[in-house]
Amino acid sequence: MLNETKIINYLKQNFISPGGIGDDAAIITGSNLISKDLLVEDIHFRLKYTDAASLAHKALQVNLSDIAAMGGLPSHVLLGIALPQNAQEYIDEFLQSFVQSCHQNNVELIGGDTCASPDKLYISVTIIGTAHTPILRSTAKIGDIVCAVGNLGYAHLGLQALESNTDIPKEFKQAFLKPNAAIKESLWLSSQASVTAMMDISDGLLTDLKKLCFASGVAAEINIDNLKNNIIFEESCSALNLNPLEVILTGGEDYGLLFTVKNDTYQELQANANFLIKRIGKIIKGNKGEVAFSRNIDLSLKEFSHFGEL
Amino acid sequence: MLNETKIINYLKQNFISPGGIGDDAAIITGSNLISKDLLVEDIHFRLKYTDAASLAHKALQVNLSDIAAMGGLPSHVLLGIALPQNAQEYIDEFLQSFVQSCHQNNVELIGGDTCASPDKLYISVTIIGTAHTPILRSTAKIGDIVCAVGNLGYAHLGLQALESNTDIPKEFKQAFLKPNAAIKESLWLSSQASVTAMMDISDGLLTDLKKLCFASGVAAEINIDNLKNNIIFEESCSALNLNPLEVILTGGEDYGLLFTVKNDTYQELQANANFLIKRIGKIIKGNKGEVAFSRNIDLSLKEFSHFGEL
Repeated sequence: MLNETKIINYLKQNFISPGGIGDDAAIITGSNLISKDLLVEDIHFRLKYTDAASLAHKALQVNLSDIAAMGGLPSHVLLGIALPQNAQEYIDEFLQSFVQSCHQNNVELIGGDTCASPDKLYISVTIIGTAHTPILRSTAKIGDIVCAVGNLGYAHLGLQALESNTDIPKEFKQAFLKPNAAIKESLWLSSQASVTAMMDISDGLLTDLKKLCFASGVAAEINIDNLKNNIIFEESCSALNLNPLEVILTGGEDYGLLFTVKNDTYQELQANANFLIKRIGKIIKGNKGEVAFSRNIDLSLKEFSHFGEL
Repeated sequence: MLNETKIINYLKQNFISPGGIGDDAAIITGSNLISKDLLVEDIHFRLKYTDAASLAHKALQVNLSDIAAMGGLPSHVLLGIALPQNAQEYIDEFLQSFVQSCHQNNVELIGGDTCASPDKLYISVTIIGTAHTPILRSTAKIGDIVCAVGNLGYAHLGLQALESNTDIPKEFKQAFLKPNAAIKESLWLSSQASVTAMMDISDGLLTDLKKLCFASGVAAEINIDNLKNNIIFEESCSALNLNPLEVILTGGEDYGLLFTVKNDTYQELQANANFLIKRIGKIIKGNKGEVAFSRNIDLSLKEFSHFGEL
C-alpha cells in the first residue's frame, strides 16, 4: 500500500535538495518557509460534529504548526476549497471564521482556489513564513535530551469520544476540534542556541520521534515513566476502553512540539522557559530511526496513519 | 449560490492589499509570486479517459499558467494528494510523471502533503515563481488593443468529445488533457513595455476578459470577425452540435494568455513576436467589466464555471 511515508520517500529519491521534502515546511530560499496541508471530510473531520468555526480554526492552526515546527513566524496564507453542493451555508461561516483566524494570527490571506466537489468537502491551505535560522529535524545529536511541548494524546482521546459519542470532559474534544499551534513556544525555542532539532507532533509522539531520529541518523529512548498524564485523562481513556500510554505514544493531531536540546544546557532551558517543557527521553546511538523504551511495555503500538484511520 | 467569484469577492472585501487576491498569482513580497490550483476527480478530470501521465502534466501546467499569467518564471512547487483506496496504482504513475514534468520545466518540487480520500482523487498544487515586474490584470487602459496567445475553445471542444465519446481529431482532446502553459510567450511579453495588462485564459475568453476589464475599471469590445478558428474546428463543433463561436467565447481550460497592448505599439509588438498574437478587440470606455461585441450575435452565452460544469 502506498502511504504517506512511501510517497515522501519516493519524492525524496527524486528531489534531494537542501531544504527539500522532509521537514514540516520547505525552505524556499534562505529564511522563507512554505508548507501545505489538506483537510478532507470524513478523513480529518466530520461535518456532523465539527462546526464551521472550529474547522476554519483548525485548518489554519495545522498549517501554522508546520511553520512553528521550524521556529518560523507565519506571514501569508492561501486557501483552497473544493465545495460540495450541500455545504454552501457551512462554507459561508467557514470563510468568515477563517478570515477572522487569519487576522488574529497576523497572517495575510493572499490567494487561493475554489471549485466544486462531487461529494466531500476538501480544504487545502498553503502557508508561508520566515525563520531567521530554520530549525530542522535532521540535526539531533547523540546525548541530546528529547523534549515535548503541549499535551500528548489529548486530541486522539477527543476524537475517539466524538466518534463514539462518549461523554468525557470537553477539554479533550476541543483538543481535537480546535488545536492551537505552539507558535510562541517555537519562536522562543528557536532563539535558544541549545535547541538542536525540532518538529511538530502531528502524527503521534512515537511516529514523529522515529521520523526525527531517522532524519538525524540516530536512535532514541523514551522514558516511559515520564509520559503519565493526569487522572481525568486516565479515567476518560477507561471510559473508551483505551490504554492511556498507547494514546499518549501514538495519538496524532496534538500539534505540540518535539525537540532536542544539548544535555548540559537542558536544566537552564527548562528554568528559563515560561511554558512547560516535558522531558521525554534521550537521543542514543543505535539503528537510524529506531525508538526504544526505558522499560518493557506490553502494547500493540499501531502507528498513526492518515490513511483510513477514522 | 456561492460560486468562485462570490467567494473571491468576499475574501477581497476582507483582505484588500496590494498583490492580494484578484490576480492569477499573488505577490508575496516584491517579485515573489505564489498561486495554488485544485484538480478534482469528476469536476476537472475523469479517470476513465485521463491517463496518469496526462493528469500529472496538466496539474503542473495549470499552475505554471498562473505564474505565466503575470509574466513570471516558475521556480518551486508543492504537491498535495488526497488519495482514494482504488487509485494507488494510478498515483504511482502520476508521481513519476509529475516528477518528470517538474524536471522538464525547471521547477523544484520542495514539499507537499498526502492523505487518504474517502472517494475521489484530489490534486492540489502550489506554485512559486518570480517576476521582475509582475504584470497585473488591473492595468489595462482605454484605447488598448486586446490580444490573445494560444488556441481558443480547443480544450472545451476536446472535453465535450471526451464526455460524449465522439470521434474528432486528437488535437482537441489533447488540448484538454495535456494543455501547455505559455511560459515563454509570457516571459517575452512581460519584457515589452507596450504590454499594459495580462492574465491567463482559464475560464474562457469572455469570462476572463470581463475579469480583466472589471479589475482595470474599463470595458471592452470583442471583434467577432477576428475569432474564427479553422475548418476542422468548425466541423468538429458540428459533430458535437456545438456553435463554434460560442465554444471560442466561453470554452475554458485553454491556458493561453489574454493581454492588452498600447494601441500605437501593437503593430511593432506583433512584428517582433516569434509566436502568433491574435487581435481580439479593444478596451473601451463603459461600465466596469462589461464586454460588448462588434456586431450582434444570437447566442446564449453561458459563462464557464467550475461549479458542476461537467
